[in-house]
Amino acid sequence: MKTKIQGNYVVAGQEAVSALYQSGYFGRPKDGVLYLRFVEAAYLLYRNKIEIFKDKTLLDFDAFLKFAALKEDFFELKYIVYKDLKERGYYIQSAATDFRIYPRGGSPGKTSAKSFVFVQSERIDLPFGTLIQHLNNTENVRKQFILALVDEESDITFFEIKRVDVNNSFTGKMSYSVPDLTKADNAAAVAAAAGPIPAILLKERVVMDNKAVSEILYNNAFFGKMLDEDRLQLSLVEALYLMEQNVIDVMDLNSEKMTPDTFAEHASAIEPEFMKKYTVYKDLKERSFVPKTGFKFGTHFRIYQKVESLDKIPHSEFLLHVISPDHQFKMPVTSGAIRLANSVHKRMIYAADTGRKIEYIEFERIKM
Amino acid sequence: MKTKIQGNYVVAGQEAVSALYQSGYFGRPKDGVLYLRFVEAAYLLYRNKIEIFKDKTLLDFDAFLKFAALKEDFFELKYIVYKDLKERGYYIQSAATDFRIYPRGGSPGKTSAKSFVFVQSERIDLPFGTLIQHLNNTENVRKQFILALVDEESDITFFEIKRVDVNNSFTGKMSYSVPDLTKADNAAAVAAAAGPIPAILLKERVVMDNKAVSEILYNNAFFGKMLDEDRLQLSLVEALYLMEQNVIDVMDLNSEKMTPDTFAEHASAIEPEFMKKYTVYKDLKERSFVPKTGFKFGTHFRIYQKVESLDKIPHSEFLLHVISPDHQFKMPVTSGAIRLANSVHKRMIYAADTGRKIEYIEFERIKM
Repeated sequence: MKTKIQGNYVVAGQEAVSALYQSGYFGRPKDGVLYLRFVEAAYLLYRNKIEIFKDKTLLDFDAFLKFAALKEDFFELKYIVYKDLKERGYYIQSAATDFRIYPRGGSPGKTSAKSFVFVQSERIDLPFGTLIQHLNNTENVRKQFILALVDEESDITFFEIKRVDVNNSFTGKMSYSVPDLTKADNAAAVAAAAGPIPAILLKERVVMDNKAVSEILYNNAFFGKMLDEDRLQLSLVEALYLMEQNVIDVMDLNSEKMTPDTFAEHASAIEPEFMKKYTVYKDLKERSFVPKTGFKFGTHFRIYQKVESLDKIPHSEFLLHVISPDHQFKMPVTSGAIRLANSVHKRMIYAADTGRKIEYIEFERIKM
Repeated sequence: MKTKIQGNYVVAGQEAVSALYQSGYFGRPKDGVLYLRFVEAAYLLYRNKIEIFKDKTLLDFDAFLKFAALKEDFFELKYIVYKDLKERGYYIQSAATDFRIYPRGGSPGKTSAKSFVFVQSERIDLPFGTLIQHLNNTENVRKQFILALVDEESDITFFEIKRVDVNNSFTGKMSYSVPDLTKADNAAAVAAAAGPIPAILLKERVVMDNKAVSEILYNNAFFGKMLDEDRLQLSLVEALYLMEQNVIDVMDLNSEKMTPDTFAEHASAIEPEFMKKYTVYKDLKERSFVPKTGFKFGTHFRIYQKVESLDKIPHSEFLLHVISPDHQFKMPVTSGAIRLANSVHKRMIYAADTGRKIEYIEFERIKM
């Protein structure tokens, strides 16, 4: 079947409407002819379904590949993904975000599209703002958002990206954020009644030497880590949270009592991203989670839904990394993080405080 | 036993030499008395073995902790690691790199030290240059170099860091870096005899449409990935390597033949780190390895020792990330990378071209 290049399309005659559109949903029929996108045309050319003429010249596959690569940004990436999806048996149509694909067994007209596929090179950073825009667009029309990442060797990794359901699957199950010390054993109750427990800020961590309270905070809410039998070490985020809850009073090395503000300033000097992390830590506590450091996994937090006793620490279901709203996802780093989460059976969440709310976004590797 | 603070030491009398040094190798005897480092003194104080006086005042543990934290950088980190190692039963002495530890069953005087332990906060970056210095110092005296990383919750992760043995455990087993095309099937032999095979540089990858040669490069040396039955896609590093080996000629989209130099310029514009990566890629090829992208793992390469047939692709034993000599290791990122390598049963290697040679450094998480 003869077709010709016309602007950004390859145009096929009326017979293509039944042969290509009605049987395979290639292209878009208009005014009695069929408009094919370059990726569709390349695929049909590869399959020997069409011949493509540029002016009067017949182009072979390589000539058309070069032509399309010059004319369309990232043509090669789109073709690699389009061909892969076609060979997996999907019906595909062009969309604002590269492709719209139909569920297995479905097709245009019969069913509505299931997913929007966004094609990207591993070499290009993905700005968080762009991600949110795409996410809003796909969520508005209730589609699944799929990122198809093409690596330097042309392998494709598919990620489903979605907001986590903060009312449902992403909720903690702790019945308290801080154990009620007055209901605890006698020594702790006495200490609690006397007001906040004193603690010392060393360089990077806070140490409290009240054995009774330390044990309750550690054993019943997984705060900090015991330094020895008597003393609890708290991380900076944990310490600020307990200060704000009036559980501890933090003294500096000169025995001066710190306010939450002076503490936050000190912590920010040690760790420039402290406040960004703390905002999310606090939100997670308010969502009844138990956030602990994710250092071993290269993320800010690993998150437990519930730890009310250290005798039965459950699996931590989530890894969470806090990012800024101006974050640019570096794809190799992101890919590694998701792969690690996967291999330790956790879900990978990115959190960003946009000022209006904290966005919790999940990246999941999927097989198409 | 009474001791007193004197400068940067806690000094104990003569009875300590037998009670603490000869029985536990604490401190350093000199002029009939025993000089204890602050970490040793803190540990002995916690164990109720000594009393510490500052001028005439007896200090309790918390007072001494504050005093030492003010006086010595990163005292809290060193104490956390020292205490942990003591409780694991090691004999420990102070050294240039924080601690020198003795093998299990060994002790100072009886055996020589096994390892140097370098204590670091997860929050501090480790410059590659510093790492190499420490490595040189420990290797000169044939010790093991251990990095003890203390995270914000005071958990310790131990890494052994070493140069890989490029003459032994880190060597490839490919009998060729490029399959001999003239010994291949007829079509490939004819093509090879006719000179380099033409290939096109698209935006980010090179495509070659010689079916016979494509199949041999792909199947027998794992170059690139087949785009379809006829065409091989090569990554930028693979393409430059094959150009330099006179296997392919690369044309740009305007059908101009590129030189290795113009190709490298183009590739560097797409990927600023291209040449850094290529230098290591080429060295790995010369070491008889098969390097492929490590994108899914967030590293530059995954490395096979041998792939002479795609019918039996072995496990890739190494992940490798290329860094600059001025690289600063961010500890959470490094920790995540090593954890991932671990969980997929690979060894994690960092490579840096220092100008004089390429350093291949392995990080391995160890249990003490």
